[in-house]
Amino acid sequence: MNEQAIGIFDSGIGGLTCVREMNKLLPNENIVYFGDTARIPYGTRSRETIKLYAEQDIGFIRKHNVKMIIAACGTVSSTMGSCKDIDGIPFTGVVIPAVQAACAAARNGRIGVIGTPATIKSGAYGKAIRAIRQDTAVMGNACPMFVPMVENGLTDKDDIIVKTMVERYLKPIKKEKVDALILGCTHYPMLYDAIAEYMGEEVKLISAGAEAAKYALNVLTMKNMLNDSGEQGTNLFYSSDSIELFEENARSFMGEELNGQVRAVSTDELVKG
Amino acid sequence: MNEQAIGIFDSGIGGLTCVREMNKLLPNENIVYFGDTARIPYGTRSRETIKLYAEQDIGFIRKHNVKMIIAACGTVSSTMGSCKDIDGIPFTGVVIPAVQAACAAARNGRIGVIGTPATIKSGAYGKAIRAIRQDTAVMGNACPMFVPMVENGLTDKDDIIVKTMVERYLKPIKKEKVDALILGCTHYPMLYDAIAEYMGEEVKLISAGAEAAKYALNVLTMKNMLNDSGEQGTNLFYSSDSIELFEENARSFMGEELNGQVRAVSTDELVKG
Repeated sequence: MNEQAIGIFDSGIGGLTCVREMNKLLPNENIVYFGDTARIPYGTRSRETIKLYAEQDIGFIRKHNVKMIIAACGTVSSTMGSCKDIDGIPFTGVVIPAVQAACAAARNGRIGVIGTPATIKSGAYGKAIRAIRQDTAVMGNACPMFVPMVENGLTDKDDIIVKTMVERYLKPIKKEKVDALILGCTHYPMLYDAIAEYMGEEVKLISAGAEAAKYALNVLTMKNMLNDSGEQGTNLFYSSDSIELFEENARSFMGEELNGQVRAVSTDELVKG
Repeated sequence: MNEQAIGIFDSGIGGLTCVREMNKLLPNENIVYFGDTARIPYGTRSRETIKLYAEQDIGFIRKHNVKMIIAACGTVSSTMGSCKDIDGIPFTGVVIPAVQAACAAARNGRIGVIGTPATIKSGAYGKAIRAIRQDTAVMGNACPMFVPMVENGLTDKDDIIVKTMVERYLKPIKKEKVDALILGCTHYPMLYDAIAEYMGEEVKLISAGAEAAKYALNVLTMKNMLNDSGEQGTNLFYSSDSIELFEENARSFMGEELNGQVRAVSTDELVKG
């Protein structure tokens, strides 16, 4: 059982920031990753459509007999609420892990959250924060341009587009003097330098995807489900749009080649289950 | 037969620029519009995925017993090539209409084309232009950020983001001293003022969606298929994401309320046919 893979999915390539962290923390684990690149982005769609896509994604991931499922997508995580397992399979999104890290980091009880419009509209981060620390003030803002910016390589902190959009989206949060800021979408770590520079050193940035990887380590340890084969784990990637496009985007996103095979899955297969 | 509707589809709301023009030119015609808002954008996807989505969109439109089909989407039009009818139903994309207008407008034989990455990669506009005027020099550039900018309301010509992105994408085309520029994606007319200001008065801008409407008028006139009922036509809109989101985005896109009923169609229905 412990050699079963861990299933990770995202609307696209953003969740690869979680895979990278998993590979570091849990080098013996096998990973099956699905990026729904034929239907990205999720964050500007309605709640109903996001739920439908997430169900289909999970259906596909479950075909791989996984021992744990991670929704490495801020939008899906916010929409699914506080779900902890799926038919007995341990599950986590990125909300709870990020919120735990933020609550630990926030000394002054003021936390900022940025995410897609669907994520911010859901209020999921705020609810989860208040469940831990009732007195916390939460400042959220939607950043709809960040995903297309990252996907089109606009990430350089000195680029006027990047600087301007970061300032526009983060100004209302900075004004509130938060001391932790949750990057609530797994694309946003690619804008880390620009966000860090604007927010200043005293604000701790929390990357939702990386926190989810640490959380998975805890869950698997507690449940005695870690892969103890002693062998190096492998990554297997699936993409719903073309393999070439996935490899190309992943390379520019991660700044390195993908460390695993990529296979295609059609949206027809996702829909028909 | 002549009272049958005209079917128009797009990846989202961009094609509404074509509907508006149709309503002006052909006030007696009934329109069935489908915007695939649950799977937008098309322009950054692979050729195979775009073809699959276009087939499913056309399948859905055909259920409405239409007398003509218009792909009011630069990406779909570029991918479908020079298709002129679908099982006997007259069809047009936006490429041929835009190219005819550009060739008529370009005095110096130098034409610029902007579009989505998929459109520019297809080379469809260039091929169509050279089929009419072999000696034309065609300068194309992909503008992947324009669709997300338009969808997020970043269209004001004095906004630093709009100014900078317009300059970045159009600089290589302006340098080539074109005297006509095809806005090869039906979202781009929303950036008309910014593009016109940057390119200068002497460059004629061609809106692909509006040209497609004029072309449809020609086709229906020649084929004696105009609706001669004398009654005001109606618009019926379908959207694959939520009706509320479609109405909201359409309102901000068009600057006015939609003049017709909106109904939902699920992506499951599109896929299953």
